[in-house]
Amino acid sequence: MKNESSDKTAMHFAQIPMQSVGPFKLIGEVDTDDLMVPMATYESPLWPSVARGARVTHHAGGIRVTVIDERMTRSVLLEAPNAEIALRDTRALQQRQDDLQAVVSESSRFAKLLDTHVQIVGKLIYLRLEFHTGDASGHNMVTNAADRLIPWILQQYPELDYVSISANYCTDKKVSAVNGILGRGKNVVCETTIPRKLCQRFLKTTPEALVDLHIKKDLIGSIVSGGLRSANAHVANMLLGFYLATGQDAANIVEGSQAINHAEVTPDGDLYFSTTLPNLIVGTVGNGKGLDFVLDNLKQLGCDDKTARPGQNARRLACIAGATALCGELSLLAAQTNPGELMAAHLKLERQADSD
Amino acid sequence: MKNESSDKTAMHFAQIPMQSVGPFKLIGEVDTDDLMVPMATYESPLWPSVARGARVTHHAGGIRVTVIDERMTRSVLLEAPNAEIALRDTRALQQRQDDLQAVVSESSRFAKLLDTHVQIVGKLIYLRLEFHTGDASGHNMVTNAADRLIPWILQQYPELDYVSISANYCTDKKVSAVNGILGRGKNVVCETTIPRKLCQRFLKTTPEALVDLHIKKDLIGSIVSGGLRSANAHVANMLLGFYLATGQDAANIVEGSQAINHAEVTPDGDLYFSTTLPNLIVGTVGNGKGLDFVLDNLKQLGCDDKTARPGQNARRLACIAGATALCGELSLLAAQTNPGELMAAHLKLERQADSD
Amino acid sequence: MKNESSDKTAMHFAQIPMQSVGPFKLIGEVDTDDLMVPMATYESPLWPSVARGARVTHHAGGIRVTVIDERMTRSVLLEAPNAEIALRDTRALQQRQDDLQAVVSESSRFAKLLDTHVQIVGKLIYLRLEFHTGDASGHNMVTNAADRLIPWILQQYPELDYVSISANYCTDKKVSAVNGILGRGKNVVCETTIPRKLCQRFLKTTPEALVDLHIKKDLIGSIVSGGLRSANAHVANMLLGFYLATGQDAANIVEGSQAINHAEVTPDGDLYFSTTLPNLIVGTVGNGKGLDFVLDNLKQLGCDDKTARPGQNARRLACIAGATALCGELSLLAAQTNPGELMAAHLKLERQADSD
Amino acid sequence: MKNESSDKTAMHFAQIPMQSVGPFKLIGEVDTDDLMVPMATYESPLWPSVARGARVTHHAGGIRVTVIDERMTRSVLLEAPNAEIALRDTRALQQRQDDLQAVVSESSRFAKLLDTHVQIVGKLIYLRLEFHTGDASGHNMVTNAADRLIPWILQQYPELDYVSISANYCTDKKVSAVNGILGRGKNVVCETTIPRKLCQRFLKTTPEALVDLHIKKDLIGSIVSGGLRSANAHVANMLLGFYLATGQDAANIVEGSQAINHAEVTPDGDLYFSTTLPNLIVGTVGNGKGLDFVLDNLKQLGCDDKTARPGQNARRLACIAGATALCGELSLLAAQTNPGELMAAHLKLERQADSD
Repeated sequence: MKNESSDKTAMHFAQIPMQSVGPFKLIGEVDTDDLMVPMATYESPLWPSVARGARVTHHAGGIRVTVIDERMTRSVLLEAPNAEIALRDTRALQQRQDDLQAVVSESSRFAKLLDTHVQIVGKLIYLRLEFHTGDASGHNMVTNAADRLIPWILQQYPELDYVSISANYCTDKKVSAVNGILGRGKNVVCETTIPRKLCQRFLKTTPEALVDLHIKKDLIGSIVSGGLRSANAHVANMLLGFYLATGQDAANIVEGSQAINHAEVTPDGDLYFSTTLPNLIVGTVGNGKGLDFVLDNLKQLGCDDKTARPGQNARRLACIAGATALCGELSLLAAQTNPGELMAAHLKLERQADSD
Repeated sequence: MKNESSDKTAMHFAQIPMQSVGPFKLIGEVDTDDLMVPMATYESPLWPSVARGARVTHHAGGIRVTVIDERMTRSVLLEAPNAEIALRDTRALQQRQDDLQAVVSESSRFAKLLDTHVQIVGKLIYLRLEFHTGDASGHNMVTNAADRLIPWILQQYPELDYVSISANYCTDKKVSAVNGILGRGKNVVCETTIPRKLCQRFLKTTPEALVDLHIKKDLIGSIVSGGLRSANAHVANMLLGFYLATGQDAANIVEGSQAINHAEVTPDGDLYFSTTLPNLIVGTVGNGKGLDFVLDNLKQLGCDDKTARPGQNARRLACIAGATALCGELSLLAAQTNPGELMAAHLKLERQADSD
Repeated sequence: MKNESSDKTAMHFAQIPMQSVGPFKLIGEVDTDDLMVPMATYESPLWPSVARGARVTHHAGGIRVTVIDERMTRSVLLEAPNAEIALRDTRALQQRQDDLQAVVSESSRFAKLLDTHVQIVGKLIYLRLEFHTGDASGHNMVTNAADRLIPWILQQYPELDYVSISANYCTDKKVSAVNGILGRGKNVVCETTIPRKLCQRFLKTTPEALVDLHIKKDLIGSIVSGGLRSANAHVANMLLGFYLATGQDAANIVEGSQAINHAEVTPDGDLYFSTTLPNLIVGTVGNGKGLDFVLDNLKQLGCDDKTARPGQNARRLACIAGATALCGELSLLAAQTNPGELMAAHLKLERQADSD
Repeated sequence: MKNESSDKTAMHFAQIPMQSVGPFKLIGEVDTDDLMVPMATYESPLWPSVARGARVTHHAGGIRVTVIDERMTRSVLLEAPNAEIALRDTRALQQRQDDLQAVVSESSRFAKLLDTHVQIVGKLIYLRLEFHTGDASGHNMVTNAADRLIPWILQQYPELDYVSISANYCTDKKVSAVNGILGRGKNVVCETTIPRKLCQRFLKTTPEALVDLHIKKDLIGSIVSGGLRSANAHVANMLLGFYLATGQDAANIVEGSQAINHAEVTPDGDLYFSTTLPNLIVGTVGNGKGLDFVLDNLKQLGCDDKTARPGQNARRLACIAGATALCGELSLLAAQTNPGELMAAHLKLERQADSD
């Protein structure tokens, strides 16, 4: 479409500034203490902010990462003559998990049907198909599986008609409650406990001040804004940087942004801080993963283990994404407890960036 | 893709594949018929999909773009001894627009205070400051303005205490209803009317089929998913590609994704299709805009007009972003009206990409 | 508290005006054509509005009612030392359905545990217990069951701590997405097809006009209002009237109001109209059901069948509630397609009411 | 309960059990310490629960009530040829506040146009008209005003077409974010500070335990449930009882339920507790207010002051409604901090009720 001969590279790539920060210390599902995490972003203050979070959590014993769930979904839209038939056919269909899996298996050796959920609205059927997709984020795998399943379903239940292969009850790259409640992507909880002294030393704040701000900003502020299953400061920033650096489909930060922080002062006076990210849609294979810098980054993160069982590399990647988000949250919230710090930090860092 | 062993540049940039598609024809706020629009993405099927939308809308007479509103916001969080004082002080404050503007002017010559909104929860005050920020997306400008305003407010109303410079009632990069209702970023409506014949020729579908799918997927599907002020297929994809290519803070696709399509069959049997994007947070100056490829892209889009009045380049950019989103919506919805087309298109395009 | 001797009755009862309207014709799960439905309300225009809907649907062959699901829920809130233990213990717990049921059975012979769902936020566990509760709406039955389950769980999993017997993930009488997605109460779909001529005769409108209004008001209007899983005109009105007349806990109209209409013009040019009510929380036994007028109303509705299997009377009641809602929706939407009709109707009916 | 065989009255009224509880002490906008508040409900445990809240807040110095805002709204739906004309005409319209008020004045001497808000979706115009409606809740007054305004608007702006007199952007009796953000009904904040000792004596809990539960249940629990601008335990219960007892349109508990609690432990170790109710849609005149028991109740509440300025009685009523809600919240949350108390209380009270 563009034919300029002079500088093909410049024309064909957006070059997003990228840096690695760390080291991160993770415990639980992932066990490491020297992880350098790459993020690509135009917002240069993000790196030192996340780095500060990495530093304090490293000193505090690390970030515990736990994978609560993993699945990828596609919702197909069918239509029945009326709700009674819609109910009868979907109930019958949901009893035939093995038959459905047999069809799915034709489309991919990795896709495993985990569950189905149905919403019936009038005579419309929103059939949400949920899969395990190995190390792929699975966008295409589930579309392909749905593409196989639809003709089979229509053949088995001839009263049903096709409406769409994708019906927004999946839902991909759009705000929803369904993704958090029924699951889409990796659901990862990241937790850390920061001793009061480290809180003061690295974050320039107290556990009480940070918890107070979290309640008034992340929780109440999000509620008054008319938020939806979202209680954080800027998770989208960290996910964007991480997703771009690791070849992910970064439009999935939309649902990724619906993360929930929970913080409290422990009986010992320390800070318990957690970020729960129900919708990390990431993979280590598939679109974008073949680029050299992506391969380098996945290797740097230890997510290219050829001997791992299917899905293990992607789980690790999700845990690291979550931990990165937690560090950015911790750091920004700490900054906002202190009047003026946020702006001063921005100005200083950007002036540094400008002078580079 | 990059083989340099010691090239620091390769280490410091994520290189996202980028192509320009078009030409686009826009009418209304922007008048052009030869616009090539760059998008950077790992998802190669996006380019031909948007290109198809550009093609059909060009033949159909173009896309009408209308800027409904533009503002950038920051919410500060203050606390009063009780709600009565919170109410009294904020009412007084809201009467002093000129005084507030005088303080704002110290922080920037571009920032103009447009309006303030208040939410009082118990004794907490969520004060949403709304600004015109010229050609900047304005994240830093509003933070800077808030940073100046807070000490002034605390001095004028000594019963109030500082809680946070940012209180999630802004809200930045998070799902909300407030951004759509009160406004944040450019609110752009993009509309086109596709004659029935062009619909068939380019989109392989009928106006009726597309409208039917739109209703069942974009509207009802989003509602059953527990969506929030969102009714589209994949607006986030186009915005991500466009934002990366033009140096935007792409984490703002979170609120950008909350776009609303509206389609109907006209009395003449043609297709009226519109995409309303209330939260396009874009600028032509600021972070990320100094990179060479970004400058090239802004120039290509005609958004670097040094003679334009402040804000005009950014408005143009928002209109193009919206039109790009509309083209992607139109194309994907058309594809989904036809069983199998989506998957076939993906497979074909990705195989092509692999063989490049 | 009140010492007046003269008119104890007047002091101890709020007397809400009540009328029965109909006859209704229902098909499907309920088969009847002479049902008179009582509604208690201060809003007198409601009766003739619903009556018009009953009339047109009766002529049109009736309203098909389908019960998609039924369950009642309570969410308990527990806390683990960390997310890893929260996950391990809840996974173990969810494998022990039989043990849980055994505990539940001690609390009620009707309560049957259907399923459990878990949300883990940091180290917090939101455990949503789902029951079949026979003919009771089940508020107390599920609380009682939870009250038995909690000590048992704490004893089996000693690392967990009690936080609350009810954690807003149930959720009762509050706006949510979870109730529609996972189910709470009876999920009933009501459908009817109105021939074009009857549409004109009784509703003074056309199928096209009503569908057009439905799309722009129920769907898009609700979306722009920042609605949540809600797409109707005034379902809350009909449910309130019906709930009060039948002894229900009418505060459950909050979730009941989250109903979704779907309408389309059929290939024959008739009107397909449906109202899907995912959260009808009704029962025929329990609080409020022992009052004489309630007993009379339940009898009038055929919901006092002593020979029916457990739950059957409540299912029938839910179907009638849903059909009543549909009639009110159909009638109001029809009125709003015609400028001036709504206000004229209100004025006329209230003047009539005043002159009674 | 009623044994009349031919008593038409028994047939025409639903008799909802009603009791008054108190005395309440209110300060701020309302100043009283002997208010007995009537509630009509089938849920008998509600009375002692609210009474407990009234008792502890009375001892603690009362409940401060503050009216943040009051307005009633109707949204009309118009359609333009395209978004550009929609924008031009609505901007022009919004400049003509005086002309609009002149038209409104023809419909009512009480209705005062306060503001207008517009949402443009494609070519659709959602015009939200906001009024002060004196002592009426204002449902009919705003419909009537809209009914007058529409023909005038269509005459002044002939390119616009009528779609509907009510467009769900009002929004009445439906879940939304717009009502909380732009305002609908009375927005009332109720606050109280309970000394630690009274907390223990009356509520059998500590400030810390109650705040902790509030955070985990009202805030986080509501967020994970996919709630929307809602953070409370059971506000709908109190509003229903109060609305029925005072002749209100109780279907407005739907938006009324979207209330937000905020609680914290004060520096002195006491409990600050507040309930913010942005959408109390109540009046002292209009439908339902002419019934004898309603008149008695309004008199008992001091809301029938003929000498008060327009709107003052309704404001007082809203404050009392809010305070009643706060008492119920405080009491239930306190109960839920103690394992087993909730169920024990229910069983005891209902057995008492049964034996009455």
